[in-house]
Amino acid sequence: MRKIRMGMVGGGEGAFIGVVHRMAAALDGQIELVCGAFSADPQRSLSSGLGLFLSPDRCYPDYQTLFKAEAQLPLGERMDFVAIVTPNHLHLPVACMALESGFDVMSDKPATLSLEECRYLAATVEKTGRLYGLTHTYTGYPLVKEARALVAAGRLGRVKKVVVEYSQGWLAVTPGVDNKQAAWRLDPARAGLSCCMGDIGVHAANLVEYVCTDRLQTVCAHLTASIPDRLLDDDGTVLFETEKGAQGVLIASQISVGEENDLRLRVYGDKASLEWRQQEPNSLWLKFADAPAQLVRAGVGELSALARANLRTPSGHPEGYIEAFANHYRNFAGQIRAHLTHANASYIERDVPDIHDALSGMAFIEAVVQASKSPQQWQRLQGGKASPSNTVQGVVK
Amino acid sequence: MRKIRMGMVGGGEGAFIGVVHRMAAALDGQIELVCGAFSADPQRSLSSGLGLFLSPDRCYPDYQTLFKAEAQLPLGERMDFVAIVTPNHLHLPVACMALESGFDVMSDKPATLSLEECRYLAATVEKTGRLYGLTHTYTGYPLVKEARALVAAGRLGRVKKVVVEYSQGWLAVTPGVDNKQAAWRLDPARAGLSCCMGDIGVHAANLVEYVCTDRLQTVCAHLTASIPDRLLDDDGTVLFETEKGAQGVLIASQISVGEENDLRLRVYGDKASLEWRQQEPNSLWLKFADAPAQLVRAGVGELSALARANLRTPSGHPEGYIEAFANHYRNFAGQIRAHLTHANASYIERDVPDIHDALSGMAFIEAVVQASKSPQQWQRLQGGKASPSNTVQGVVK
Amino acid sequence: MRKIRMGMVGGGEGAFIGVVHRMAAALDGQIELVCGAFSADPQRSLSSGLGLFLSPDRCYPDYQTLFKAEAQLPLGERMDFVAIVTPNHLHLPVACMALESGFDVMSDKPATLSLEECRYLAATVEKTGRLYGLTHTYTGYPLVKEARALVAAGRLGRVKKVVVEYSQGWLAVTPGVDNKQAAWRLDPARAGLSCCMGDIGVHAANLVEYVCTDRLQTVCAHLTASIPDRLLDDDGTVLFETEKGAQGVLIASQISVGEENDLRLRVYGDKASLEWRQQEPNSLWLKFADAPAQLVRAGVGELSALARANLRTPSGHPEGYIEAFANHYRNFAGQIRAHLTHANASYIERDVPDIHDALSGMAFIEAVVQASKSPQQWQRLQGGKASPSNTVQGVVK
Amino acid sequence: MRKIRMGMVGGGEGAFIGVVHRMAAALDGQIELVCGAFSADPQRSLSSGLGLFLSPDRCYPDYQTLFKAEAQLPLGERMDFVAIVTPNHLHLPVACMALESGFDVMSDKPATLSLEECRYLAATVEKTGRLYGLTHTYTGYPLVKEARALVAAGRLGRVKKVVVEYSQGWLAVTPGVDNKQAAWRLDPARAGLSCCMGDIGVHAANLVEYVCTDRLQTVCAHLTASIPDRLLDDDGTVLFETEKGAQGVLIASQISVGEENDLRLRVYGDKASLEWRQQEPNSLWLKFADAPAQLVRAGVGELSALARANLRTPSGHPEGYIEAFANHYRNFAGQIRAHLTHANASYIERDVPDIHDALSGMAFIEAVVQASKSPQQWQRLQGGKASPSNTVQGVVK
Repeated sequence: MRKIRMGMVGGGEGAFIGVVHRMAAALDGQIELVCGAFSADPQRSLSSGLGLFLSPDRCYPDYQTLFKAEAQLPLGERMDFVAIVTPNHLHLPVACMALESGFDVMSDKPATLSLEECRYLAATVEKTGRLYGLTHTYTGYPLVKEARALVAAGRLGRVKKVVVEYSQGWLAVTPGVDNKQAAWRLDPARAGLSCCMGDIGVHAANLVEYVCTDRLQTVCAHLTASIPDRLLDDDGTVLFETEKGAQGVLIASQISVGEENDLRLRVYGDKASLEWRQQEPNSLWLKFADAPAQLVRAGVGELSALARANLRTPSGHPEGYIEAFANHYRNFAGQIRAHLTHANASYIERDVPDIHDALSGMAFIEAVVQASKSPQQWQRLQGGKASPSNTVQGVVK
Repeated sequence: MRKIRMGMVGGGEGAFIGVVHRMAAALDGQIELVCGAFSADPQRSLSSGLGLFLSPDRCYPDYQTLFKAEAQLPLGERMDFVAIVTPNHLHLPVACMALESGFDVMSDKPATLSLEECRYLAATVEKTGRLYGLTHTYTGYPLVKEARALVAAGRLGRVKKVVVEYSQGWLAVTPGVDNKQAAWRLDPARAGLSCCMGDIGVHAANLVEYVCTDRLQTVCAHLTASIPDRLLDDDGTVLFETEKGAQGVLIASQISVGEENDLRLRVYGDKASLEWRQQEPNSLWLKFADAPAQLVRAGVGELSALARANLRTPSGHPEGYIEAFANHYRNFAGQIRAHLTHANASYIERDVPDIHDALSGMAFIEAVVQASKSPQQWQRLQGGKASPSNTVQGVVK
Repeated sequence: MRKIRMGMVGGGEGAFIGVVHRMAAALDGQIELVCGAFSADPQRSLSSGLGLFLSPDRCYPDYQTLFKAEAQLPLGERMDFVAIVTPNHLHLPVACMALESGFDVMSDKPATLSLEECRYLAATVEKTGRLYGLTHTYTGYPLVKEARALVAAGRLGRVKKVVVEYSQGWLAVTPGVDNKQAAWRLDPARAGLSCCMGDIGVHAANLVEYVCTDRLQTVCAHLTASIPDRLLDDDGTVLFETEKGAQGVLIASQISVGEENDLRLRVYGDKASLEWRQQEPNSLWLKFADAPAQLVRAGVGELSALARANLRTPSGHPEGYIEAFANHYRNFAGQIRAHLTHANASYIERDVPDIHDALSGMAFIEAVVQASKSPQQWQRLQGGKASPSNTVQGVVK
Repeated sequence: MRKIRMGMVGGGEGAFIGVVHRMAAALDGQIELVCGAFSADPQRSLSSGLGLFLSPDRCYPDYQTLFKAEAQLPLGERMDFVAIVTPNHLHLPVACMALESGFDVMSDKPATLSLEECRYLAATVEKTGRLYGLTHTYTGYPLVKEARALVAAGRLGRVKKVVVEYSQGWLAVTPGVDNKQAAWRLDPARAGLSCCMGDIGVHAANLVEYVCTDRLQTVCAHLTASIPDRLLDDDGTVLFETEKGAQGVLIASQISVGEENDLRLRVYGDKASLEWRQQEPNSLWLKFADAPAQLVRAGVGELSALARANLRTPSGHPEGYIEAFANHYRNFAGQIRAHLTHANASYIERDVPDIHDALSGMAFIEAVVQASKSPQQWQRLQGGKASPSNTVQGVVK
């Protein structure tokens, strides 16, 4: 028994999301960071690694060197998987080289820049037989998992309508030139087809698919850029229909002044409905036609096994974003551990966004961008097939 | 000085909305009910009127008799205006006969069954020179008026995005045969072109227009009926653009199980944004990019004169739906009083939904129904011109 | 069948609470205002009455004249009851003269200046056999009535602990000299023994007694005046024990800056607990040890008959302070109507704060003032016996 | 540069709070667990340590062996500090032996069983010159730190009133025999003088002292045991006055059915007031007499340096209980690092509950227990002197 060993590409000094990945990986004591190529600048990669208390010989100047060197280390020493936290356009090459060098991959979202790239990635995952995880953070929350279990158990009846919103306000005004986040997200070369839908709309779509164990099938979309010279969308609304026949609305915005990170989901069935809000993640509303609404709380009463397995503290001790993130890491570590010992991962360990979610997300982005430009109202998503992992098996409590 | 005298058509024993109109009219002691034709059944009209402590000779068997008889009473006795609370298809004939008989009209919403009918009504209002009010209740709330004042004063900057929702759940399942509300609302002959949009969507549209002092200009809509044999919509989403260039989303639903009467509005400007929810009407959120959100409360701090004039109690003493309704009645009574004395009504008295709002609402309903059926994505509203009353004059505090 | 006729003492131009009483009385169309002595200044009484559209001969110069003149009017014309909305020190003489002149009384709270006065009033009520109501507004809310029904039905099990708070902030700083409310409330000659406890603490105590169908039995209290020269308390905490053995805490404050009118109640039983807040009066929380909390809402699901009888609108249409107030008036009018026809009032009509609540409230005020001054920790309330009306009969649904 | 090395006493398989300490210590990558005596059962200590991926030779059979063995390891290898997570009665002996063996101590709360023991501990801390931290978790929240900064900066004016509550429901009924938490907490031999006040009341008192930079000076208390055979309190209310003259109420309960871990604080100054609730820890209300209340949010707008230094994520990404806990660990690690290099810890690193808070907490418990039993109303706290660390220095932003 030993900790699972993680390498990291990206996430050097000054980067934000790399720090979150490291906290999430460290939280449960199952994973240790052993090496990294933290920056395209070798000197900065080294100093970043030293700041993380790594041995200098495992602070690599670039990711190619990292994969080569680690692959040559003895089994008892070399890393097990790599966390990819680079800018988006590097996700594909880093992931493919990792997979082909024999390492599992946990990638920041989005998986790639386009659906076509993502299909190539999926083929590589299949060919190498390695594990691939994608940090769609929000499905890591215990009460999102409870929502999924409730829908799968039929507690809502047939799902008829879904409303999902993801509102932020940080792009409402033209950002300062030093705002690197804004700069690359609004640049088609680095961000791909879409800013708002690619950055946050896709999280909202993923949340719907996860909670409903369903896939978006057709979309009608209206994307806008609120400031004249913007080349990509900063706001948009998507009407959608799912494979199982639910009607839906997805609102995503980066120009909603005063909103922080307001991801909200409402799912209406013919028997009951549910509501969840990321900014108060430990509460889940369950509503009925003719009875008082119930406030399902993390740690109170009978939750599904899926939710309970992803909770760390008793009721009234709030868990948050890092814990949700950490659930994906801990569950992914469980998959790796099972793989190392030729065991089967449990359904709880398998409950991590995977290459099928990656494909579905890229299909969503491409479809909404196309729908918004098209005179034809509705577009069918390409390649968003329901994956084997996205089934109710093991979800019902 | 005397009370303004009200007659009523509709609202007999067992009816619901007539009772609300009577409470709203009575609340401030400015209006007294003096007569009525409460039912198509003369006996029931009489017993209803007696139950309201009216003199039997002013409980009329039908509205035609009412208008004729009242018109012949001496000025010091006859009614000043009529409240119309019949089923929708009677709104037009009753209103026109009232106007032409020399009585002002306060009508329940919607004004008519179609835009064409509404244009006829508008012509009659103009021709007779009488007063016409429409009970779009929700703009009667003090904090909705505060929201209007804040937008008009430029506190939000330029309005860029609007999200308005009106969710109910009562049509989620097939209603029992004794549910008369459901029966006529789903019947095109009695309800007109639309169920959900005509009943509640139009309230949402009116709220946007009132708060933003703006008009919806183009719409893209997707309306659905969730149960196979329904002839009219019970759910829908509308994308819209306003005359002033704001982008918007309007969600209306009668199948959202567990929702009560959940009308919510969010308006995002480039400087600030606001949020209001009908179920907690004494609170209004004002949000900023880089400062704490403020909870504007009825009765706390500096409110606009428009809001203050429509508040009855100090802070922390909640006012509700009936008070909002009563504001329209009291302000309308002020218009009548001014008219009687050849004075000008104040801007607070004029702040009642009028024939322009009626036209705008009917144009909205027709446009969204057409847009939903059309392969062409966007429809322009016909006849929703900004009315003289819908200007910022007198709104800025 | 006719409306119940109300006279009013106090409530002239510029007064606040008289307006609320008039709106509450008017709301349901059961009561009409027919006369008044609105001010100690005869001219102001007259102009006030004319502003209310009264006949000048029923605008009396003082309350003595009012009672004499009305008593001599024919039965078909004279008032049935008087609403007393004068400053507190006049409550007793006006009420006693009304009762002895053959009129029922609806009095603003507190009933009298002292427990001794209140006993005299109770004796007068008993001697004359007339009806007496007291406007403890907050027990008029439908969901407070639901709370009472739930406790009476045993849904909470045995009540073990009660926390009640009433926080306001308006006396946090020395009020301006033109603040008449502050001036008389802090003056022992006009306000009696206590400011904070007499004005709002007693409402909180009444709310506990009503919801729990119980009476406070012993108290330990700490009252303070936060500004040096104040002669009466502006803040205080009371520990109490009830007749049925529940432990309680009552916090009342007029110096809690930023609080509006924040009356909150929590009742903890050994099976479940409830929570209600006056500023959001249409919601009632019901909490359990091992199951999700339920949000009981006005108009949703199965409410008690007591709550339903005091609701006017469907779910999601908020009712507020004036409606709660109006419930007391409408129910009191029902008592009067029954009395006039020698019928028995229903338990819903009898559900109005009465002379027993008046006695209990004055006993509370005296006991907490005494307890706060005494070196002995606990004081027993004098005269707060459970009244016949304060029983569970008719409460259980 | 290296990680700070932590040993642990207690926290073996099946224990709860040990896991939380380990997650909190691991989160920021500053601390590594290197050894432990996890259980009084040597075999269980070993298996627990192996489950944490420790080397078997550093899984000690008891704490005495741990301190001896570690003290003999070379400086570059031995642990820096010990986390004490044993049952309460062992806190004192373990802490003293650690300190005298040259190790810093982070202890779970309460520090000791009595004030006398705590004075002995304080003397040992002083004598050895080592660092001592106490995990009063709730002061680790960023917005609690913001509250402290706001009070210190005078934003509330003079603090006049404080209301603090800590409500739980888990002891409402007699717990099952297998509930070990309940068993020892209700046993005077293992829990000390008090159950409810010792377990949670003391957290509430600590929160007041921290936020107000003040100390409780006198108390009046009423503690009860709601079930006959309980030897210790399970509910209580404390009236208090602080050294700076604020009046306060502290309510603590373990029998409030349906409450989770509901710690709430309200502080009322003469200019403004604040409100914070542990179950929604990323929000802090700031209220004013004549202006809208402000919702201060983690990550939004200008927060104090103290709050910012204890935040890990941008606005809208909720942080919770483990992050608050981790702040104490990370800041304590900073103290150790400074101590190792003979540097001065920053005021942010020094912002960890210390031996002065330990003394103050034990003085609080003793005083309220005594006050509750005494016929004399008010008791003065012994030994709760304002500590040098508890000053405004460095707090004002």
